[in-house]
Amino acid sequence: MTQQSQNLVIGLAGLGTVGGGLVSLLASNADIIERRTGKRIVLKRVLVHNLAKPRTVPLPPDVSLTDDLTALTDDPEIDAIVEVIGGKTTAKDLISRALDHNKHIVTANKALLAEEGQPLFSKAKQRNRILRYEASVAGAIPIVQALKESLASNHIHSLVGILNGTSNYVLSEMTNRHLDFTEALNGAQKKGYAEADPSLDIDGHDAAHKLVLLIRLAFGVHYDFTALPIHGIRGLSKLDIELADQLGYHIKLVGQVREAGTNSTPGGPIEAGVFPALVPHSFLLARVEGAFNAIHIKADAAGSLFFHGRGAGDLPTASAVLADLLAVAREEYPNNTGFALDLPDATVADPNDWTSCYYVRMMVEDTPGVLRDIAGCMARFGVSMSHVIQRTTEDLDLVPLVLLTHETTEKAMQSALRDIETLLKPKELVSFKVLS
Amino acid sequence: MTQQSQNLVIGLAGLGTVGGGLVSLLASNADIIERRTGKRIVLKRVLVHNLAKPRTVPLPPDVSLTDDLTALTDDPEIDAIVEVIGGKTTAKDLISRALDHNKHIVTANKALLAEEGQPLFSKAKQRNRILRYEASVAGAIPIVQALKESLASNHIHSLVGILNGTSNYVLSEMTNRHLDFTEALNGAQKKGYAEADPSLDIDGHDAAHKLVLLIRLAFGVHYDFTALPIHGIRGLSKLDIELADQLGYHIKLVGQVREAGTNSTPGGPIEAGVFPALVPHSFLLARVEGAFNAIHIKADAAGSLFFHGRGAGDLPTASAVLADLLAVAREEYPNNTGFALDLPDATVADPNDWTSCYYVRMMVEDTPGVLRDIAGCMARFGVSMSHVIQRTTEDLDLVPLVLLTHETTEKAMQSALRDIETLLKPKELVSFKVLS
Repeated sequence: MTQQSQNLVIGLAGLGTVGGGLVSLLASNADIIERRTGKRIVLKRVLVHNLAKPRTVPLPPDVSLTDDLTALTDDPEIDAIVEVIGGKTTAKDLISRALDHNKHIVTANKALLAEEGQPLFSKAKQRNRILRYEASVAGAIPIVQALKESLASNHIHSLVGILNGTSNYVLSEMTNRHLDFTEALNGAQKKGYAEADPSLDIDGHDAAHKLVLLIRLAFGVHYDFTALPIHGIRGLSKLDIELADQLGYHIKLVGQVREAGTNSTPGGPIEAGVFPALVPHSFLLARVEGAFNAIHIKADAAGSLFFHGRGAGDLPTASAVLADLLAVAREEYPNNTGFALDLPDATVADPNDWTSCYYVRMMVEDTPGVLRDIAGCMARFGVSMSHVIQRTTEDLDLVPLVLLTHETTEKAMQSALRDIETLLKPKELVSFKVLS
Repeated sequence: MTQQSQNLVIGLAGLGTVGGGLVSLLASNADIIERRTGKRIVLKRVLVHNLAKPRTVPLPPDVSLTDDLTALTDDPEIDAIVEVIGGKTTAKDLISRALDHNKHIVTANKALLAEEGQPLFSKAKQRNRILRYEASVAGAIPIVQALKESLASNHIHSLVGILNGTSNYVLSEMTNRHLDFTEALNGAQKKGYAEADPSLDIDGHDAAHKLVLLIRLAFGVHYDFTALPIHGIRGLSKLDIELADQLGYHIKLVGQVREAGTNSTPGGPIEAGVFPALVPHSFLLARVEGAFNAIHIKADAAGSLFFHGRGAGDLPTASAVLADLLAVAREEYPNNTGFALDLPDATVADPNDWTSCYYVRMMVEDTPGVLRDIAGCMARFGVSMSHVIQRTTEDLDLVPLVLLTHETTEKAMQSALRDIETLLKPKELVSFKVLS
């Protein structure tokens, strides 16, 4: 696109939920886009896997379908390519070849960028091309823009987010309707919020992909996806959700990254992971319901910032894709990673030294001495407790015993839990971090 | 600044809270700014009113002070000017003259832009200069950026925000600590959250200035500030806060703009105003505590978006100013109003036709027939009630009677209230809109 031109010609790769949403939005909102920006986004060609497949989204008459990747990447009339096919192999080939042909890229592909993004970012930089991915993280929430531009003068201290709508929907249903995990997951699948194979969402991998992108943007480092601690919500017990609620917490699947230790230095070691955590009712993050996403940031100048919105869906995601396309149309400075330099690998603090408060729940016999033994195991490793609940019921052999700890290290907590396991052999022993 | 240069040379007008915050932030975070953007923001000269006044913020040795406006506006070495002196007269002269000298402008001056911004936006457009004002609205929350860029493909349906931290602090104190208005305001003044003359904050004018800027960005129209309905929180009764809380609402001072009617058309009539309103506890907006700001947006593609953060303070505001300066350093496309065209005047729906649910509270004698009479007045104008509470106490002649209405028009509500006033002559009769 020349600076004089008011049109940006695009090729679209993928005509699923997001691709269809983009086609609809381009048609319905061409007027507002032109009023706001003076630009027209002109869709020229759409790459699909199967040309014969019936399409529900009506394509404008001058838009052609193709199943040949090079019909997008090699077309000199196309300025930018939107990649929303998902998966890693074809998407990577497409983006790489498109960059070779000096196309700008807009993608929603969090898995590709998290796992194999580095060479693509390098190539984009080398070719001075714009590679944008607002739609990859938290759907319509403009978090990439916020981290890259609005907070550019800030040292980020921490970021914690609800980054996967499917698992948040499941947890919300378990909390509000007192369902167990399987019932809630089945309900989510019936409503189309969860895939037939829900592993990517439920086991935390999708949230982890997004977290790797957010770490890059917030801290300017590359965190190896395969090294990220990931714990999902599969099989989470309804009992823990109820007990946590009574104690003043909601259990949420969060992705968190923060500077390690208390006397953190910029560019110093960080801690990061995806895990279910107890979030105090008083935090806005605890109020995130259903399939929504949210992100809370602490930064040195801006202070505390919280963003909440739709994390998925055809139009919310298309809205983010279009924001990126309009930035491409403005020919914005291609600072793709949010940092001007090539990103170094993250310095990761030893997970043994990470600190947190913890919730621990076990099923124990309701006999004298149990609490004394548990307290002994905790004390041996310097873990102090802030709260203990022992629920007594007459008709059960085993009763839940719940405790909350003060801040302690992961190493001390795991050591105490191993001692409890050995000494008491409780039928169940689960623990969660508590956000503070 | 040439495209090759990595430095942006700035002049700063004003060395109060925000100006001081900017000087500090430039000094403390020069490293992160350069890591992120590859740019250096170089402060050359600071305009102050009184050269002799002692300064708490240490200025770098190569930065000079001046009390001559033209030493900023006319200096060919200065690329951009930051205006944080506040007030309208000098600030306007400064910005206007700086634009004449082809400077880019970053300002936090909501009053100036809301009341007299049109000629400045026109001049900036004519000279192809960047005029940015992220810090003018909601402090560190990147709402200007979100509306101008992230939501650029969206028709905005509505926007409602807590835009004034001082009045939100007062209301939070009244709600959480059961203070009356005067006690809470005195406390805010002691803590430095409120000025000695609190009128701008408490009476809603500051929120109204910000709302006018948000209307421009969200709807692409110019809403005449003097025509905006503004109701503040002065003298708000502790009793209404308590009664609202019992009914499941917090009272918040909100600025709201939305498309009028149900079958709204883009570019059609809008409703807007600043007023205290009952916000359901289940809304995130009801959870905004203390001096924080927050904004909730409904848009056709992105859906529901909520932003929360610090609305004032030296560093949060300086963070927003620096984000704007970095956009200037990138020489971003100067779409200053968020719309490519000159903005038309807003079409404002007749306030009589605006619809809302209402909370009404009056002090009445606790005698039979009172409720019948009130219900009669309501029914006469087609106002139906969803909830009535009559508090009976043995030791008072007058008791509070509270009712919530279903959605009705402003005209019907005011007519019913006038009838109640005439018929029952209640000692007090107050009403608030209820957000839904």
